[in-house]
Amino acid sequence: MRISQLSAATDVPVPTIKYYLREGLLPPGEQTSATRAEYGEGHVRRLRLIRALLKVGRLPIAAIRRVLAAVDDESLDMHTVLGTAHYALAPAVEPRPDDEDWRRARAEVDRLVDDLDWRVTPFAPARDELAQAVLTLGRLGMPATGERLRSYAEAALRLVTERETGVIPFDGPRESAVEALVVLTVVYGRIFDAMRRLAQESVSAGRFEAGGSPD
Amino acid sequence: MRISQLSAATDVPVPTIKYYLREGLLPPGEQTSATRAEYGEGHVRRLRLIRALLKVGRLPIAAIRRVLAAVDDESLDMHTVLGTAHYALAPAVEPRPDDEDWRRARAEVDRLVDDLDWRVTPFAPARDELAQAVLTLGRLGMPATGERLRSYAEAALRLVTERETGVIPFDGPRESAVEALVVLTVVYGRIFDAMRRLAQESVSAGRFEAGGSPD
Repeated sequence: MRISQLSAATDVPVPTIKYYLREGLLPPGEQTSATRAEYGEGHVRRLRLIRALLKVGRLPIAAIRRVLAAVDDESLDMHTVLGTAHYALAPAVEPRPDDEDWRRARAEVDRLVDDLDWRVTPFAPARDELAQAVLTLGRLGMPATGERLRSYAEAALRLVTERETGVIPFDGPRESAVEALVVLTVVYGRIFDAMRRLAQESVSAGRFEAGGSPD
Repeated sequence: MRISQLSAATDVPVPTIKYYLREGLLPPGEQTSATRAEYGEGHVRRLRLIRALLKVGRLPIAAIRRVLAAVDDESLDMHTVLGTAHYALAPAVEPRPDDEDWRRARAEVDRLVDDLDWRVTPFAPARDELAQAVLTLGRLGMPATGERLRSYAEAALRLVTERETGVIPFDGPRESAVEALVVLTVVYGRIFDAMRRLAQESVSAGRFEAGGSPD
């Protein structure tokens, strides 16, 4: 297909496609004449992935480049490719190894992950996010008990194993698997969070209307 | 206590306390002489709440003012006061009633909430967040089935009823209840999200290491 058709197929404007080509995010089409190039299904998939990383993942171009490099690196297995995208999507939390309270919070998180026997690398960004949350709770004078953290971990694991298994297509093109991972991690993360807040409101309403001590 | 002691008790610098006093977020102390005022436990609680709304909820001053006005309005019941804070904490999503796709997504969310029999007001911001997510999924060509949305709703409700009941102290001062709500909604929301991403990584690692089809 020509660039105008690629644009129509993906809803990405031609000037944007040209920008991605110049930036090397999108591989060039097959040159069929001095002024014309032919694009294929691989370009459609790649553009979809770029848009998902940009619009859904809100990643900067440099991070998108890293994710695409992993997708293109045939020496990497799928778990590593998906992991690269997964880590890039994590909210940025600045580790503060100079702060003793921060180190203690991070150690508590690491201990919990060990106790749970979860297979997570030491540099998973979610460890730092959890350390930050644990630190915040301590500073507010409402420290998280290990039991409460573990209870959230179990609920999260149940969500993942019961509802998030099988949604990533591993046997198709890598681009499609990574795109599905972005959507699962980011959009369904937002969906769960919004559902949780609706459920909180509903449970609270039920309790107050029931009268008496609303617990 | 004097303003310096109030500062020590809350870890809020004296100039910041004076700013909150000028802005009317913190009620004045009891004037004991021309240059001296006396502050009490109510001021400590109020300052803790302001800090939680500001640092944890990341609310702008105008929104904090609205939440505090609800806390101070004795004619409002606790459910309404908590609801004011809860809605203020929601991520801002612009409803787009002019967009037909948006209206359809929002109608789908409203239907789901009805089907679930959840007691949620029509202006709960999480409805718009969900509509936005549903719209995004549609535009990516990965529409959310009603079944999948319902499955997330059920998982969220289970989290709320099994682990988030009884953590808000309703019988103490209103400030403490609202502070606990901020922490529960925001910090534990972040904790769940980080746990979910760790669980995703762990489940993925287990599946890939098991070999064969990783799905």
